[in-house]
Amino acid sequence: MKTRYGIYAGLVFLAFSTGTAPVHAAGSAADEVRAADDAWLKVYSAKDLDKSVAFFDERGSMLAPNAPIATGKPAVAKAIARDFAAGSVIWHADKAGVARSGDLGYTSGTYKSAFKDSSGRSSVDNGKYLTMWKKQKDGAWKVLFDMFNTDLPPS
Amino acid sequence: MKTRYGIYAGLVFLAFSTGTAPVHAAGSAADEVRAADDAWLKVYSAKDLDKSVAFFDERGSMLAPNAPIATGKPAVAKAIARDFAAGSVIWHADKAGVARSGDLGYTSGTYKSAFKDSSGRSSVDNGKYLTMWKKQKDGAWKVLFDMFNTDLPPS
Repeated sequence: MKTRYGIYAGLVFLAFSTGTAPVHAAGSAADEVRAADDAWLKVYSAKDLDKSVAFFDERGSMLAPNAPIATGKPAVAKAIARDFAAGSVIWHADKAGVARSGDLGYTSGTYKSAFKDSSGRSSVDNGKYLTMWKKQKDGAWKVLFDMFNTDLPPS
Repeated sequence: MKTRYGIYAGLVFLAFSTGTAPVHAAGSAADEVRAADDAWLKVYSAKDLDKSVAFFDERGSMLAPNAPIATGKPAVAKAIARDFAAGSVIWHADKAGVARSGDLGYTSGTYKSAFKDSSGRSSVDNGKYLTMWKKQKDGAWKVLFDMFNTDLPPS
């Protein structure tokens, strides 16, 4: 089942990747947060927990469905580990923007995920997300808030 | 049932209002978005559709659970009307922040809602939200993104 699930998630990834056309305005601050979003997706979809948590600001929060707000890296790590255990996810930023001062930005778009439902059957979900980014003293963009929810009707 | 539901929602509101202590640093830009959040809550909890929609930026988006992203005032109006029909909600901003340039800000906190479930029984939900605010040319803060999801386990 694990192998089959892996193939399934791979197909979802492929279908999603080819269905979207990234928009880039070269050299803008919005490009920086979009690049951070892409880099985060890379380690998150590979289920690298340490690297995924490292994308968060020290006081960053994960606002995942079906759980209270998780603030700070230890709580965020638990929330991401739960997400990794549930299945696989990919996303794409349709919008990105940064304040004129360049210290606060956002990315927002849609996600697709593949997971096993409570009866063990492979299932898919699609939804949307909003991520707020805060520029650190070293110039790196880190996640201040990450939130997502499903587009699907209640089961 | 309608009256009883109204009383019920009122009790939820009261319990929530008295259980939180707003934090204000006088005169800061964060106070401005917190005030906008409070003003929006006032018209939203009163289910004033026109005034609630008016809080959105022209290109603002509502990212409600169980529906695709709604962008622009006509789509946002439909999403809010659905939310009003489902029940009553109140929220409280635990965090508020603004970029140094004062053009982009956020509020985030928790909500409580009272609604009727599919069998017509009164039910409650609690969760969290993240709102991004964009300062308009006239100085007013408007909603660029509003997103929320439940803390409760899947039903």
